[in-house]
Amino acid sequence: MSDTVPVPADLDPALGEETYRLDRAHVFHSWSAQAGLDPLVIAGGSGSTLWDYDGRRYLDLSSQLVNTNIGHQHPVVVAAIKEQADTLTTINPATANLARGRAAEAVLRHVRGPFSKVFFTNGGADAIENAIRMARLHTGRAKVISRYRSYHGNTGVAINATGDWRRLHNEYATGHVHVFGPYLYRSEFWAMSPEQECERALHHLERVVQSEGPSSVAAVLLEAIPGTVGVLVPPDGYLAGVRELCDRYGIVMIVDEVMTGFGRTGHWMAHDRDGVVPDLVTFAKGSNSGYVPAGGVVISDDIAATFDERVFPGGLTYSGHPLAMASIVATIGAMEDEGVVENAASIGADVLGPGLAELADRHEVVGEVRGLGVFWAVELVADRGTREPVDASVMARLRTELLERGVLPFVAENRLHVVPPCVITPDEARRGVAAIDEALAVVGAGA
Amino acid sequence: MSDTVPVPADLDPALGEETYRLDRAHVFHSWSAQAGLDPLVIAGGSGSTLWDYDGRRYLDLSSQLVNTNIGHQHPVVVAAIKEQADTLTTINPATANLARGRAAEAVLRHVRGPFSKVFFTNGGADAIENAIRMARLHTGRAKVISRYRSYHGNTGVAINATGDWRRLHNEYATGHVHVFGPYLYRSEFWAMSPEQECERALHHLERVVQSEGPSSVAAVLLEAIPGTVGVLVPPDGYLAGVRELCDRYGIVMIVDEVMTGFGRTGHWMAHDRDGVVPDLVTFAKGSNSGYVPAGGVVISDDIAATFDERVFPGGLTYSGHPLAMASIVATIGAMEDEGVVENAASIGADVLGPGLAELADRHEVVGEVRGLGVFWAVELVADRGTREPVDASVMARLRTELLERGVLPFVAENRLHVVPPCVITPDEARRGVAAIDEALAVVGAGA
Ligand SMILES: Cc1ncc(COP(=O)(O)O)c(C=O)c1O
Ligand SMILES: Cc1ncc(COP(=O)(O)O)c(C=O)c1O
Repeated sequence: MSDTVPVPADLDPALGEETYRLDRAHVFHSWSAQAGLDPLVIAGGSGSTLWDYDGRRYLDLSSQLVNTNIGHQHPVVVAAIKEQADTLTTINPATANLARGRAAEAVLRHVRGPFSKVFFTNGGADAIENAIRMARLHTGRAKVISRYRSYHGNTGVAINATGDWRRLHNEYATGHVHVFGPYLYRSEFWAMSPEQECERALHHLERVVQSEGPSSVAAVLLEAIPGTVGVLVPPDGYLAGVRELCDRYGIVMIVDEVMTGFGRTGHWMAHDRDGVVPDLVTFAKGSNSGYVPAGGVVISDDIAATFDERVFPGGLTYSGHPLAMASIVATIGAMEDEGVVENAASIGADVLGPGLAELADRHEVVGEVRGLGVFWAVELVADRGTREPVDASVMARLRTELLERGVLPFVAENRLHVVPPCVITPDEARRGVAAIDEALAVVGAGA
Repeated sequence: MSDTVPVPADLDPALGEETYRLDRAHVFHSWSAQAGLDPLVIAGGSGSTLWDYDGRRYLDLSSQLVNTNIGHQHPVVVAAIKEQADTLTTINPATANLARGRAAEAVLRHVRGPFSKVFFTNGGADAIENAIRMARLHTGRAKVISRYRSYHGNTGVAINATGDWRRLHNEYATGHVHVFGPYLYRSEFWAMSPEQECERALHHLERVVQSEGPSSVAAVLLEAIPGTVGVLVPPDGYLAGVRELCDRYGIVMIVDEVMTGFGRTGHWMAHDRDGVVPDLVTFAKGSNSGYVPAGGVVISDDIAATFDERVFPGGLTYSGHPLAMASIVATIGAMEDEGVVENAASIGADVLGPGLAELADRHEVVGEVRGLGVFWAVELVADRGTREPVDASVMARLRTELLERGVLPFVAENRLHVVPPCVITPDEARRGVAAIDEALAVVGAGA
């Protein structure tokens, strides 16, 4: 489809130059040294295709920051945003708002278990913030166990800087404990099989819980499948084991579905595969494909009840923002109507899974391929025996080769993440795999 | 104007019921115990007017959470959002985006000093997060001094929960120090005049800096005028004194303009009045009136240069979100074109200032009125001599009386904040003052 998506006729190359100039003059970028940046200019997009102001097209194998699950510029979602913009863009979260109620209902349709309340935020980080806040206040415990290989967002201090009463129930300056999770290809547990990795990772987690003091641990927080750190699909039984352990010690289980939720894995929630019911589920990206900044926490009835009579000491100006809410309602509705999650599952099973596995067979530089749905990592190694990662220059070259072939990649450390929109067609996915094949041949030869 | 704003003809009361029902069933609210909530239902709005599904109108003296500076549903901003929605809703912050570059340029037009870079966020809290991050890394120091009477947002833990490298430069689990700021009506310094309050507050701040160890203090963070905590307009010379103190000790001065920026005080930036140039300026609300979640940090060239060759270890998925950026460009443009900031200044000088002062003269229950522009607090006291605050029931009654008069108030502790959109007309403002007059008569008689 990407080849056939028409690029608008009125693209103006001068705007591309203006965009680049303004960016370099005035925009400070995330996670980067600013001097050497050479950002790609994007003018627009549709489905799995993006284009620049010169009409050059890219097949988006990144979904940007793994958020545009429904693809770019889905007409139903765009129309809903425009309609809500005409009605009411913003309102105090303390009021009742129709789009917000409907968004909560739509989210709840896809999170199985005793959940009837949603707290909305602006993105992933503040969803995590509020989930942790709830877990701490619900349990009366302070510590949070999460994993070394994880990313949960960039916030850490505003409430401690705040001076008024809103700080007082939020001063947990310490209490973050990190553990290792399952990752058989680079096992931290000297494991030789998925079963062993699972069992040992659970043992390790339980030993940390016991050593920290179970009665001090509020929550175990974990991505259903760790995402930016490598698409580390857990072995069967791991999440269920964590659930059991949390039950045993009265610990809140927070599953972070910010990257994995809403179709990415070919399921609505990645933890659906594992048959577990968390206590709190955080979401953002896929819930509305990021068309408007939004995120949130799905709250178990048990935890919600803690705050029936007791003030929940957290909030934000744009909680349940109408424009964002309308985009959630439309995105989830369109995904349901169009079988978008099912498409992600079959793309994974029929095209990306077999296609990437085949590349691993043929390219010595590929150490491991893992994933499901439209959520894959291709790990590049300098040596298959030692599994030593390739160095950064190889990945930079890979990126360039893919861009030259009209493919927008997501590169993280020594990995290529293949994470297109859930709406990608089989033909587009095959074209993506073919481009990766060519690019791997170039960097493999050079390595 | 509020009386004349036409309410849409097709309002459906059944939607009001659905809105309320969905809210109570599924929406978890900020800063509240959930059980007793009885949220107001709002269907739409225009300018300074809002209405519900029964066609009941409210004059908005709250600007929601003090964010809709340009009023509700400004047609230029709505059109810009719709146009951007048609072009490109979302894109990776690592790319260059035209709306983003133009938004940075628009923001920079209104922040005086050696500023050429902006880092965009989703709201106020994450603006503060990133400003503090920059200050700490720029100075190599950890402590941040802010005020007890302040609010800077609700985030505090996501980066500590994160396990990967992105946590490593962000582990400042401690280091928050709080001081008292100037507030003559309830002086913490036994001061009798504004001059004395100013001098003593600066002395107190300097003594804390010295006692904490100046070489350990990264930043002094302060709202230009503390907002939710009471519209505490600082005495002349206070901000200039803080600037001087920061210079003396090599401390970064972060001015939080989230609530005060973009017209609220009748100035583009509240600190413009004080003739100071901060090192970092945080903004959110007024920059786009909250039509799309957005915020950011304006970065001095000196601090920006720190990250030319060094990685800035912070970021968020929706940094510089195109839809939000388009709304910033349109909002600032419309405010410039329509003299919105000038209107806020004259409403303050000609209507709200004199009007509220007159109420203070006539109503014994009013302890103090303070403010400027469209940023006022009316402080209610049980006793003018002791200045003892009225109790919560008085404020609840005041709120009810105002709602019954078709006025949407902002109530905080023992204060009524009179914070309408900057576009409020003199007639509307007079009508607001008249309603407050009546409501004060009721609660004053009952008290
Ligand atoms: C699993 C996970 N949690 C949280 C976040 C933070 O989300 P945001 O960038 O919207 O704050 C991310 C972002 O990539 C993520 O992948
Ligand atoms: C001065 C100030 N700073 C920061 C914030 C936090 O902004 P947000 O709610 O968008 O996170 C607020 C919110 O009221 C504020 O008034």
